[in-house]
Amino acid sequence: MNINERSEKIHRELKGKIGTQIKTEVRNKDDLSIVYTPGVAHVSSLIAGDKNLAYEFTGKANTIAIISDGSAVLGLGNIGPEAALPVMEGKALILKEFAGVNGVPIVLDTQDTEEIIKTIKHIAPGFGGIILEDFSAPRCFEIENRLKKELNIPVIHDDQHGIAMVALAGLLNSLKLRNENRDGDRDVRIVVAGAGAAGVAIAKILHADGFKSILVTDSKGIISKNREDLNSTKKDLLEYINNENIEGDLKDALKDADVFVGVSVGGTVTGDMVASMAKDPIIFALANPTPEIDPDTAYESGAFIVATGRSDYANQLNNAVVYPGLMKGALGGSKCQFTMNTFISVSRALAAHVEPTKEAILPDVFDKEIVEVVAQVVREAVC
Amino acid sequence: MNINERSEKIHRELKGKIGTQIKTEVRNKDDLSIVYTPGVAHVSSLIAGDKNLAYEFTGKANTIAIISDGSAVLGLGNIGPEAALPVMEGKALILKEFAGVNGVPIVLDTQDTEEIIKTIKHIAPGFGGIILEDFSAPRCFEIENRLKKELNIPVIHDDQHGIAMVALAGLLNSLKLRNENRDGDRDVRIVVAGAGAAGVAIAKILHADGFKSILVTDSKGIISKNREDLNSTKKDLLEYINNENIEGDLKDALKDADVFVGVSVGGTVTGDMVASMAKDPIIFALANPTPEIDPDTAYESGAFIVATGRSDYANQLNNAVVYPGLMKGALGGSKCQFTMNTFISVSRALAAHVEPTKEAILPDVFDKEIVEVVAQVVREAVC
Repeated sequence: MNINERSEKIHRELKGKIGTQIKTEVRNKDDLSIVYTPGVAHVSSLIAGDKNLAYEFTGKANTIAIISDGSAVLGLGNIGPEAALPVMEGKALILKEFAGVNGVPIVLDTQDTEEIIKTIKHIAPGFGGIILEDFSAPRCFEIENRLKKELNIPVIHDDQHGIAMVALAGLLNSLKLRNENRDGDRDVRIVVAGAGAAGVAIAKILHADGFKSILVTDSKGIISKNREDLNSTKKDLLEYINNENIEGDLKDALKDADVFVGVSVGGTVTGDMVASMAKDPIIFALANPTPEIDPDTAYESGAFIVATGRSDYANQLNNAVVYPGLMKGALGGSKCQFTMNTFISVSRALAAHVEPTKEAILPDVFDKEIVEVVAQVVREAVC
Repeated sequence: MNINERSEKIHRELKGKIGTQIKTEVRNKDDLSIVYTPGVAHVSSLIAGDKNLAYEFTGKANTIAIISDGSAVLGLGNIGPEAALPVMEGKALILKEFAGVNGVPIVLDTQDTEEIIKTIKHIAPGFGGIILEDFSAPRCFEIENRLKKELNIPVIHDDQHGIAMVALAGLLNSLKLRNENRDGDRDVRIVVAGAGAAGVAIAKILHADGFKSILVTDSKGIISKNREDLNSTKKDLLEYINNENIEGDLKDALKDADVFVGVSVGGTVTGDMVASMAKDPIIFALANPTPEIDPDTAYESGAFIVATGRSDYANQLNNAVVYPGLMKGALGGSKCQFTMNTFISVSRALAAHVEPTKEAILPDVFDKEIVEVVAQVVREAVC
């Protein structure tokens, strides 16, 4: 069986990759008196007197809501809440397996920005943090920013910052490997394909870390001042990118570029386009499930390093290497929000944790130390 | 240590009585390809084509949201969402332990009826059913009725119907035990103290099962036509109760009554009031955590049978005997809602399952057969 068939089979057998874990037994009336009425009334009364005690007496300190409206799921687009559920369950599974953090998938039957914000605020008291997943741009920026302001638990939109941290970490180590050939890291020419949640966040973190030459493309071509079809997010992005006001399409953008970071649509980059790039180009083809260019084709066309978002290829750039540790570090009663400085610190720690090779620019997702490395950075940086 | 101290200790140690259970391992990249990307994209695509497939491929078929706004928690009143969390976790624990059903506690940071209804509808797609818990009356009636109409998964307000089913079952068996002395079961004089969620539901199920003489009291006394302070729920209730238009307080109501069902406030019934009742009165003092009257005092004053809501006394009338089986029976893809006939059928099955004694009028909560007995009734009755 191929991967799709095996995945279908296991999902059908499990009927849910996660469930409710029981942490104490209820064998008799005495147990029931302790975990439920009358004993629980005493615990509830204590929390009623000081709601911060929910962090001491309930799962709030170690439980995160993983929330999606199904509007931008993987590379599949707007497939709705029910179809987003297997992805959210997968996130919860990874979060528990890798970091011991409890994740609760919540899929929303609304795609209205204000309704989403209100709903998440209404259900927040039981959770120690919120991961936003697979919300389409530009709504995702408003939703994340508002919730960060209006909630007192950490909120993160994983599709933006998870992948941005991993892309920056991967780029730092790729440039380290390429440094035999070139100097002036922060001057490399970078093209980010895709101006959705991930593309915008990648461009911003690269700029914040000092990279000077960044172009971003969307389906209409290079984002530049001259374009009259830009939404406010893309207009705001011009602060960070395209200083030289370059126009054209993706093919034009890639000519002589050093780095391609694709978070766009599968199959949109050709071997010729890679061949037109500068010597030893770095290719991150992160569209899921189909990369922008097949790794073999990219290598044949001169790529120095190729990474994708897939678990079944070498050099996976997977935000699973980041978010378990990120949430573990932010939990436990933190009322602070993540900042760009935290994200950059995580990227640098991640990159520094390994001696990279061309086939493994970043730590393996299954490296048991990674969660604690990331969590420690977050603990030191947040607040 | 007493129960409160032990409960506080175990809650502090556990930091959450439930967590996220992992149902499959993620040991390597191959596992990750199957449970997450790219394999999960195939499963999501299938559900995007037919959202009913969420029942086949995700936890929806066996996962229930346990939702409260913390407005009427146990006997503690409006203590807010954080303080309600230990109770919801207890419900989830019992649901999993007794029926194998996954429960997700959701506590709401709003007590506005319309916001509550919208929020629950928005988060419903990931769940196979909804249990409403500890919403205060009269809002709870509107919330339940609207959600039953507007959602296509089973919805139940446990504080109404769970306790109503258990009260009816307990009464049927108590009358069976008392039948040596008296005839004419359905003519017994019943006083229900408390006109909140539980009291209203108890009065309605008793009426629906044929009981003819029911009085309901609230903090102002017996609910009667002459009262000018009744809200619409209490006015509607007059259809089912107080045919003779009796006025007075709880003490007046109890004179010559056969049955007292208290879902009100601890310590409000005296031994003298029990002594004023008909011969061999049946006393269900269900206020939590403190009953309306101490069982010993009630027996000393002539009670034939005494039951409470507490796990640590004999004859507990606990909705934990009902809701695990109720939800198990209703899950798995049912789009139907519970009806009064289903509730009555459950009560009768529950009562018939044991040969009652005065110390055990109902099956034990830990009777392993009960969940399936109740689930089977629901499977036959719903839809």
